[in-house]
Amino acid sequence: MNCNTETQTACGDQIMRWADELAQFSEAPDMLTRTYLTSAHHGAAAQLAEWMCAAGMSVRRDMAGNVIGRYEGLTADAPALLTGSHFDTVRNGGKYDGNLGILLPIACVQQWHAAGKRFPFAIEVIGFAEEEGVRFKATLLGSRAAAGTFDLAVLDNLDEAGQSMRDVMAASGFHAAGLGKAAYAPETVLAFIEVHIEQGPVLLNQQLPLGVVTAISGASRFMVEIEGLAGHAGTVPMDMRRDAAMAAAEIGLYIEQRCHGTRGLVGTVGQFNVPNGAANVVPGKAVFSIDIRAEQDETRQAAVADVLDRIEQISQRRNVAVRSRKTHEASSVPCAPWLQQQLAAAIESSGLSARRLPSGAGHDAMAMAAITDVAMLFVRCGNGGISHHPDEIMTAGDAALAALAFSRFVDNFKR
Amino acid sequence: MNCNTETQTACGDQIMRWADELAQFSEAPDMLTRTYLTSAHHGAAAQLAEWMCAAGMSVRRDMAGNVIGRYEGLTADAPALLTGSHFDTVRNGGKYDGNLGILLPIACVQQWHAAGKRFPFAIEVIGFAEEEGVRFKATLLGSRAAAGTFDLAVLDNLDEAGQSMRDVMAASGFHAAGLGKAAYAPETVLAFIEVHIEQGPVLLNQQLPLGVVTAISGASRFMVEIEGLAGHAGTVPMDMRRDAAMAAAEIGLYIEQRCHGTRGLVGTVGQFNVPNGAANVVPGKAVFSIDIRAEQDETRQAAVADVLDRIEQISQRRNVAVRSRKTHEASSVPCAPWLQQQLAAAIESSGLSARRLPSGAGHDAMAMAAITDVAMLFVRCGNGGISHHPDEIMTAGDAALAALAFSRFVDNFKR
Repeated sequence: MNCNTETQTACGDQIMRWADELAQFSEAPDMLTRTYLTSAHHGAAAQLAEWMCAAGMSVRRDMAGNVIGRYEGLTADAPALLTGSHFDTVRNGGKYDGNLGILLPIACVQQWHAAGKRFPFAIEVIGFAEEEGVRFKATLLGSRAAAGTFDLAVLDNLDEAGQSMRDVMAASGFHAAGLGKAAYAPETVLAFIEVHIEQGPVLLNQQLPLGVVTAISGASRFMVEIEGLAGHAGTVPMDMRRDAAMAAAEIGLYIEQRCHGTRGLVGTVGQFNVPNGAANVVPGKAVFSIDIRAEQDETRQAAVADVLDRIEQISQRRNVAVRSRKTHEASSVPCAPWLQQQLAAAIESSGLSARRLPSGAGHDAMAMAAITDVAMLFVRCGNGGISHHPDEIMTAGDAALAALAFSRFVDNFKR
Repeated sequence: MNCNTETQTACGDQIMRWADELAQFSEAPDMLTRTYLTSAHHGAAAQLAEWMCAAGMSVRRDMAGNVIGRYEGLTADAPALLTGSHFDTVRNGGKYDGNLGILLPIACVQQWHAAGKRFPFAIEVIGFAEEEGVRFKATLLGSRAAAGTFDLAVLDNLDEAGQSMRDVMAASGFHAAGLGKAAYAPETVLAFIEVHIEQGPVLLNQQLPLGVVTAISGASRFMVEIEGLAGHAGTVPMDMRRDAAMAAAEIGLYIEQRCHGTRGLVGTVGQFNVPNGAANVVPGKAVFSIDIRAEQDETRQAAVADVLDRIEQISQRRNVAVRSRKTHEASSVPCAPWLQQQLAAAIESSGLSARRLPSGAGHDAMAMAAITDVAMLFVRCGNGGISHHPDEIMTAGDAALAALAFSRFVDNFKR
């Protein structure tokens, strides 16, 4: 028996119930915060292992703290189709971000196991221990360990209490020396599929429950500091001003306009501040962030170049000084067309249309792409698409549709 | 002997020396901060009284803490030409703002006294105890007491230590019950002239040492809060955003553009902040201030109306909510044309041109206008016109030219 149309309601309800239960593992009261290797995090890992085991999987941990459940194929030691996502959260986050991508395949395996169904390949469901980067300011720790691209330098990063990642890991029994063994050998892996809530409003606005990710967008980030000349708001005539905030405002609006209308391109000024600003003082300083992402790297690079040019023009015209610092740069990670096609077919077999869309957010699939082809199944979220926030929601019905699509994808999976 | 061309260098040097000495009275180390009725403030008051006395004036304090020196005229009890400014400062302020307008007339009186010169009227030099409003968040305390317009409600205002203004005054021997007696009887007053640094770049840019103020600009201030919808910077397409910061940026640039090109009109967004902004989050909230000032009230009111209209349009188009709160409104205070004319004549008699300009900043003359005609003599400052800052500077040469102009104004004063 598959997680099919008959059982899909039960399957969706199961996923939602598990998500509620898992959300109880939080290091802060009255909100969901679960960062790497805290007690709440250990509790969630144990709970996932229990559910995996009960669903018919053998369970192991690796030295990054990842929780891995293996559902054997028709033959022992068959190469595995990997799936999964992360079970750490941001501070005061939502309960579906990451967790859905672990709970949904466990629910499907549970059904296959109950029905005695096996595939010509194994299925491994990975609960990645860390993706958000909250505690140690380093992201994708779990999936980088699994992909063999873990950067050992981040082991020296400190948390807010001043403890190094290395020490915190060791105290939990996870030793850096064993991280290398966490890496999958590529020949044992068929592909990696990540199920994730969209964390945006595209599917919601188009009234579609599911989408197929085309690529995880590349991103460029900058912090910019503008220095003009502070002055008295009453006494400095408009044409004698060197107003840092208005220079920043003009740059911000240019970024917004430049990124508008190009599919898959977004640009954001998320931080904007006039330090020590006062109502009666012309701002002498303004600080803001720039975040530009695109499905295609050339699209992003062209936008970044135009923005940097325009910053130069604006700052010259307004006679202000600019210091900008690149804080992040990541290339786009394409999802494999053959996997996209099989995911779309699985969705369409339920009579749904399979919207293709880029993922503007980063995901574990980015890291897994180092060792295998990857794909992502997006699930609609409610509340305008809000995520990283307690208002993050999705429905049991969508969970059921996603489980059905995932189940059909596995059923028909051909490499 | 007047403070005339022969003695002007000495006179300018004297003023600069006194300004340096007075700047030693500060409540904070390595900067000039002198707020109402602190020890530094009491020390400065005593020093001013000493210099006034040595210059040939009788000195009194009133119940607001103002220090008043009277230089008698040819007959006892003659009506008085009033002059003066404030000796409190902002935090980490400059040493000429306010203080110059007390020290310069003391220097002139000293010269007249040494030469045995008397006028058909008395001259009173007022050191106003409070103008900036730093300690008790209420401005113009000294000049309002002198004008009989002191608002008794502010006596209950608290400083940062939680002490009421009433209690702090009483502890220094200044009792609220006596404030009424601080008010001048209008029939004893001929006019009020305030000498002040420009606190702006207009005279500096036109290479003119002195200017005649036409009016003290009226001002309207607002605090504005924009509420849009927070979202993930990577996942919310540009056309689905309700970005609070970009709405604020657009409003700011409109204010800048609307106030450009109209003489005497200025508009400033001095505070601009995205609370808890993060580089990867589309801003859901932005907070900013608006300050609009103009020499003519109609000019200001028209600009404010246009700005409020445009805020409405922008917020509707961008689907964001706006809460704006008026925090301040003051009408323009015109300087008396007959006094402007006599000041201009005094300046021009030294071969200088007398630039007329509005004062965008508030001054004690605003309060004094309640009981008599007022005028202001502006003195050029350096460093781009910076004020309320330790970089506030002016030259001894300009102090000398200002003393000469003030002296000639008094010499030729006719009501």
